[in-house]
Amino acid sequence: MFVPGLIERKRDGGALTAAEWRDLLGAYGAGTVPDYQLSALLMACFLKGLTREETAGLLDGMMASGSRLEFGDLGRSVIDKHSTGGVGDKVSLILAPLVAACGVAVPMMSGRGLGHTGGTLDKLESIPGFRTDLSLAQTRAQVEKIGCAMIGQTPEIAPVDKKLYALRDVTATVECVPLIAASIMSKKLAEGLNGLVLDVKQGSGAFITDAERSLTLARTMIELGEDRGCPTVALLTAMDRPLGRACGNALEAEEAIMGLKGEGPEDLHEVTIAEAVEMLVLAGEKDRARARQRLDDALKSGKAAETFQKIIEAQGGNPAVVDDPALLPQAEAVEVYYARSAGTILRVEPRAIGRAVVEMGGGRRKVDDVVDPTVGFVITARPGQKVHTSEPLASIFARDAAGIDLARRALDAAIEIGEGKASPLPLISARVTARGVEQLTGR
Amino acid sequence: MFVPGLIERKRDGGALTAAEWRDLLGAYGAGTVPDYQLSALLMACFLKGLTREETAGLLDGMMASGSRLEFGDLGRSVIDKHSTGGVGDKVSLILAPLVAACGVAVPMMSGRGLGHTGGTLDKLESIPGFRTDLSLAQTRAQVEKIGCAMIGQTPEIAPVDKKLYALRDVTATVECVPLIAASIMSKKLAEGLNGLVLDVKQGSGAFITDAERSLTLARTMIELGEDRGCPTVALLTAMDRPLGRACGNALEAEEAIMGLKGEGPEDLHEVTIAEAVEMLVLAGEKDRARARQRLDDALKSGKAAETFQKIIEAQGGNPAVVDDPALLPQAEAVEVYYARSAGTILRVEPRAIGRAVVEMGGGRRKVDDVVDPTVGFVITARPGQKVHTSEPLASIFARDAAGIDLARRALDAAIEIGEGKASPLPLISARVTARGVEQLTGR
Repeated sequence: MFVPGLIERKRDGGALTAAEWRDLLGAYGAGTVPDYQLSALLMACFLKGLTREETAGLLDGMMASGSRLEFGDLGRSVIDKHSTGGVGDKVSLILAPLVAACGVAVPMMSGRGLGHTGGTLDKLESIPGFRTDLSLAQTRAQVEKIGCAMIGQTPEIAPVDKKLYALRDVTATVECVPLIAASIMSKKLAEGLNGLVLDVKQGSGAFITDAERSLTLARTMIELGEDRGCPTVALLTAMDRPLGRACGNALEAEEAIMGLKGEGPEDLHEVTIAEAVEMLVLAGEKDRARARQRLDDALKSGKAAETFQKIIEAQGGNPAVVDDPALLPQAEAVEVYYARSAGTILRVEPRAIGRAVVEMGGGRRKVDDVVDPTVGFVITARPGQKVHTSEPLASIFARDAAGIDLARRALDAAIEIGEGKASPLPLISARVTARGVEQLTGR
Repeated sequence: MFVPGLIERKRDGGALTAAEWRDLLGAYGAGTVPDYQLSALLMACFLKGLTREETAGLLDGMMASGSRLEFGDLGRSVIDKHSTGGVGDKVSLILAPLVAACGVAVPMMSGRGLGHTGGTLDKLESIPGFRTDLSLAQTRAQVEKIGCAMIGQTPEIAPVDKKLYALRDVTATVECVPLIAASIMSKKLAEGLNGLVLDVKQGSGAFITDAERSLTLARTMIELGEDRGCPTVALLTAMDRPLGRACGNALEAEEAIMGLKGEGPEDLHEVTIAEAVEMLVLAGEKDRARARQRLDDALKSGKAAETFQKIIEAQGGNPAVVDDPALLPQAEAVEVYYARSAGTILRVEPRAIGRAVVEMGGGRRKVDDVVDPTVGFVITARPGQKVHTSEPLASIFARDAAGIDLARRALDAAIEIGEGKASPLPLISARVTARGVEQLTGR
């Protein structure tokens, strides 16, 4: 394998074969191809694109570098979901136990906070004692026993993806649709799934803010899933404002617990149910109305919340938080934020909110930063809402007065009050499958 | 300095400031910025280009990483030339002593063979004992004493250029005009020149075969030189056939010695004199006809050959080779190559010839290959010449019968005999300066 020749071909707009991708990633994983050759190739990929066959070759190369979960005859479908990431997106914390409570196996592998967005692992770890570093064997055993495990990417799953991702992060080659798609799917397909639901975020707070590119991402992931025998469905959901009210790890865990009891914010509930319906349908439920009913039953009966308790207990956490969320870590400083003027709320900009959470200590600027689970916001202001001066719009949860100050300035910037009309994106705008795009008349 | 931010800006078509380039290359040279970030940036440069200011910043960063030759009050102009590289191009071996014999200081820094092209250092080192690894202090002393030194890139000159070049070589980012221009000029401008002549090769045997791109390369180097106070002139010369007759290190040294005595091939003489005239004009000669006369005198009087003897002696070589070229190393196997058919010689393809010299042992496939100075060709066939079957067209100089075979097959492929009309490029097609392109009516 003459690597400069492969780089040159890609640079000049040509394509590598699937076998070349596989061999190259194998050699990269083994350390015989250096980082500096991969980073030049990745930049060429970024600027020249990848064909469908190449993206598949890249995916296969990453999967071949590690192990897969193998469930054998579980007697249940194995379904997972993935979100492209947003602010206030705590859907997974409700969705996984809820769908598991309906009899579906959910081996959920999630990530940490990245950039301005939060991560499911950080939210789960705000529950005292909760551990996400399960091995594949532990994960399999837990899924067999209680139907669900909520873990991080183990060292056994697609190690080359992990190595490549770290390289992309420091060489400005992250935001490339086929590279993102292959990276996500290499982990998800290694879970041995029978189906996958994708939540592809749209709007200013999404990683990919361009609507057309985010649709391309959805389609690319669907192709990769379907081609490898994993039926895949994507919902395009709004991330031009935070989802729900809470932004910050423990605050979001609390809101998720409320959601599991049917007491969460309406938008969060709607997105969660929409994704849960898709998961049940992928698991064999033919009737979407019945799927909705089963989910409603699981919430109302307390079975969903109970399943979350079992997950927490199995993973070393304190299950009492489900009954008493006050057991979650609490912020030192709390302050209410009031509207500075009267008018209509035109925007609640999620990126500014997400960045503020990171700056307040609730996210990482460096890989080894310690996350403070207590800090963040509970924002009741919604785009379109009419407000009067000094009306409370949010609560700030910080470590100290400096954090409160920082948060207040962030809200000043994020919440735009004016005279016009708000035009938020539809909460769920489309459903994308291998057959095409179905526009949804969401609110 | 946040390197991924710089890479991202370049990736998206933006420009780095000159200060950013300088700081980045400084950090790269110091080892605090890793290869994998530079290689991603270089690929983005390759695909997005560099502005004039950026190319200058890159150049300055490379120069700042090392030392310069400083001549103080030498009482003579300091002029050099650079060739973009070809097959049979032994001009430097004649030009440097010839121009030095006319009273110009020539601190000539050259390279080794690269790809299919030969290198001045390898040709010089075919002279028994000749050393090219002089320090800057030794170079300065020799130029002060005898007006000329012929050396390789010292570790003191633009070390970051050397590091970057090695990285480009293994990441498919070599053939990029601004990167090539800045690399060449970082070394030449470090010689403390008062003027520079560029020989930019055109045609199938040049590194850059596209005429427009080679003109852009010439213009970019001229801009860089002029902007930094070094008047720079380029001649565009033909490399669609070998220059002169000899191809191979000792054979070319011998042909250069013939040239210094006025007995070399006509095309070689013409290119050499054209470049020498430019060098004398840059050194202050106002009258081009007088420049020509001075050069003619230096050749005819034996002063040019004598200067070459002094250079050889000063650099540890055996100066007797100038009087007796048979002292140069001689090939074991010699054979004449005859025309296989009658007709007109349509092409003598230099790339095939240059590659054959490398394969016969006369060049390097790996950096640490040992070069055999004896092997190569003396090709008398010229495009346009009418030949009859079995007319001698070349002599082959090889190590053994296998080398002879390989060389014969190379000549079969390189020398095209047919019925049409040959259409070689003009030997010297244009003269390029900061003021523009002057088309020349060469032969």
